Amino acid sequence: MALVGDTSSMAYDWISFTTDYGLADGFPAACEGVIARIAPAARVIHVTHLVPPQDIRRGAAVLAQTVPHLPSAVHLAVVDPGVGTTRRPVCVATGAGMLVGPDNGLLIPAAIALGISAAFELTEYRLNPVSATFHGRDIFAPAAAHLAAGLSPERLGPEIDLGTLVRLPEPETVATPGRLATEVLSSDTFGNLQLAATALDLAASGAKARTRVHAQVGDRSVEAVVGQTFADAEPSGAVLLVDSAGHLALAINGGSAADELRAGAGSPAVVLIGR
Amino acid sequence: MALVGDTSSMAYDWISFTTDYGLADGFPAACEGVIARIAPAARVIHVTHLVPPQDIRRGAAVLAQTVPHLPSAVHLAVVDPGVGTTRRPVCVATGAGMLVGPDNGLLIPAAIALGISAAFELTEYRLNPVSATFHGRDIFAPAAAHLAAGLSPERLGPEIDLGTLVRLPEPETVATPGRLATEVLSSDTFGNLQLAATALDLAASGAKARTRVHAQVGDRSVEAVVGQTFADAEPSGAVLLVDSAGHLALAINGGSAADELRAGAGSPAVVLIGR
Amino acid sequence: MALVGDTSSMAYDWISFTTDYGLADGFPAACEGVIARIAPAARVIHVTHLVPPQDIRRGAAVLAQTVPHLPSAVHLAVVDPGVGTTRRPVCVATGAGMLVGPDNGLLIPAAIALGISAAFELTEYRLNPVSATFHGRDIFAPAAAHLAAGLSPERLGPEIDLGTLVRLPEPETVATPGRLATEVLSSDTFGNLQLAATALDLAASGAKARTRVHAQVGDRSVEAVVGQTFADAEPSGAVLLVDSAGHLALAINGGSAADELRAGAGSPAVVLIGR
Repeated sequence: MALVGDTSSMAYDWISFTTDYGLADGFPAACEGVIARIAPAARVIHVTHLVPPQDIRRGAAVLAQTVPHLPSAVHLAVVDPGVGTTRRPVCVATGAGMLVGPDNGLLIPAAIALGISAAFELTEYRLNPVSATFHGRDIFAPAAAHLAAGLSPERLGPEIDLGTLVRLPEPETVATPGRLATEVLSSDTFGNLQLAATALDLAASGAKARTRVHAQVGDRSVEAVVGQTFADAEPSGAVLLVDSAGHLALAINGGSAADELRAGAGSPAVVLIGR
Repeated sequence: MALVGDTSSMAYDWISFTTDYGLADGFPAACEGVIARIAPAARVIHVTHLVPPQDIRRGAAVLAQTVPHLPSAVHLAVVDPGVGTTRRPVCVATGAGMLVGPDNGLLIPAAIALGISAAFELTEYRLNPVSATFHGRDIFAPAAAHLAAGLSPERLGPEIDLGTLVRLPEPETVATPGRLATEVLSSDTFGNLQLAATALDLAASGAKARTRVHAQVGDRSVEAVVGQTFADAEPSGAVLLVDSAGHLALAINGGSAADELRAGAGSPAVVLIGR
Repeated sequence: MALVGDTSSMAYDWISFTTDYGLADGFPAACEGVIARIAPAARVIHVTHLVPPQDIRRGAAVLAQTVPHLPSAVHLAVVDPGVGTTRRPVCVATGAGMLVGPDNGLLIPAAIALGISAAFELTEYRLNPVSATFHGRDIFAPAAAHLAAGLSPERLGPEIDLGTLVRLPEPETVATPGRLATEVLSSDTFGNLQLAATALDLAASGAKARTRVHAQVGDRSVEAVVGQTFADAEPSGAVLLVDSAGHLALAINGGSAADELRAGAGSPAVVLIGR
């Protein structure tokens, strides 16, 4: 185990933790144990460990939508299909906290939201030995813990040219008067379908409160009303609203839009206004 | 973000947290982040975030059965199909802690267990802006955090006449000698079927230890023995026992009563004694 | 509630917690509440509560593979099909922490990893009354909390002859040149199949890096390559590697070995080398 940080001068009281490790196997707890040994005073907020396996885009979206509500923290995130390959482990420093994880695009939307200032490759402060398949425990958690305990990010490894950080292609939204073409970002536990489009796109399409819209999602479609909350639709009716993260979402009042439209992350969505 | 509470005079060290938000989307973490910003010294015990979506009755039962074992706390609970409508957000003060959540019946069984003393509508200390669909993050979590940090509940908003709090109809149990008519409250992870009836009802029906009973649950039935624990039935046999929350429960030794009887919350149940 | 421990002289800052209670019913929270009342300064790391119901062997494996990464702690573990029978509740003291749970084999692999020094039956410091079906809350959590708060394990009850502790039969692995016969210990959230065999067994079979192997698992089989990480196989190809716990694991690069081979815990596995 590496040096134990001096917790009397904690740089960050909080570490947030996001993975696709699932909750059945003890993987998040092994990482939390590594953190507890290095930075015992750090407190962990579990964002989610149920990102669909290896779904980097979904992990990036959950992280970006959650960090604005967290205290200043080290944000540890691991969705890492390339574990054990040459993909770089990185720390991205921002104006409002540190992000630690694989250089595969996972951290970038959250880092942009927080204001990227610099990035470093993680070559130091690893556990010894490092396994080939569990870098969350052996590389990322130790780095996050040392940052929380006050280590300067420069000491984790060489600085990286920000232009070389891997970025995911962003989902495309085209908003024209009367028509919004976008895609489903995710469906939540209630079956609400979050779209890549935002309130700005809705305004660009000309839709206003109580406008009737026709929403085609994948192979199915539904008539919906533009509203503010679920109850703006009649029971079992569909509503198009701006969700709590600023995205458009398609919801069924008292039901599941994901089930009714048999749609989910990646489904193409077209909204026709006022038809 | 509202004023940060003075954590040197915490009113409650603990906040318990119960929702139907699921564990995949980061919603509980966003609320925990809001709490951490307002009341950083507060410690959160997650009761569950897997209440079935919008199932107020199930959320109320889990909360009421868990709070007696928790330390003195602010109990934050959100199962809220009416989010964004005129249903009131409330704080219910009790002799042994505060409850915060929607006024839809969710808090009442736990509040009764703790001893209701007063209730207040939550009109102050909200985040700004308040979203239409995520009052857990924007109204309830800030209120819970400010209470933990020492705010008097009167400062959250106007006092409410206790008689106007929304209550859920309680499941009915009729116990007569030789017969118990009740319903299934829930099935747990082991497939044990918890009934609305309690040990008192069992006594009223005349059943004693080792009595044979015939249990009809929904469309199916099973012969069971009145016992204290699962092993009081033979392997794969059924037992009717008083569970750890004081309710009657129907269980299969080494199996799942929910699977065998294809029953769950809301299923009617009739127990015939001594047949 | 029993005496509250003197938290100024905590023996253990951390309690790890492993069960098959699931995450829907509030059972882990009730135990955490009991801990918070007795040892408020103790901090809980949740290993998992999704051990398959009553699967002692799986619980034992997760616990043994996680504890080496945790700080010095009281490890509370409850997978307890014999709750309410004569099986003993025990504390197993080790050179690197305490284990608390039922005497059914659950604790032994972790205890061996930490170095067993003594064992005690839990007859004191229980909640009053003790339910017949929830000893996690009423016997095990109070014992763990009192240990964390500084109680000597001798005070929990009479010492037990270590030879009388219940042990589970271990899965058998036979490694001969060219052939490994073993079984699947578990499948994780990514569908990787962890085998009972270890790196030593692989060496005994004569397999080296990049060796081609034929793996028969249950009724199905797959050609695989011996590698270090998932990407050592071509996309959708199979790799046999040493996992982060030191066991052999069969994985599909970008896919699920569990799905492809329709295998899981207990499936027999035979690996033929160099065919």
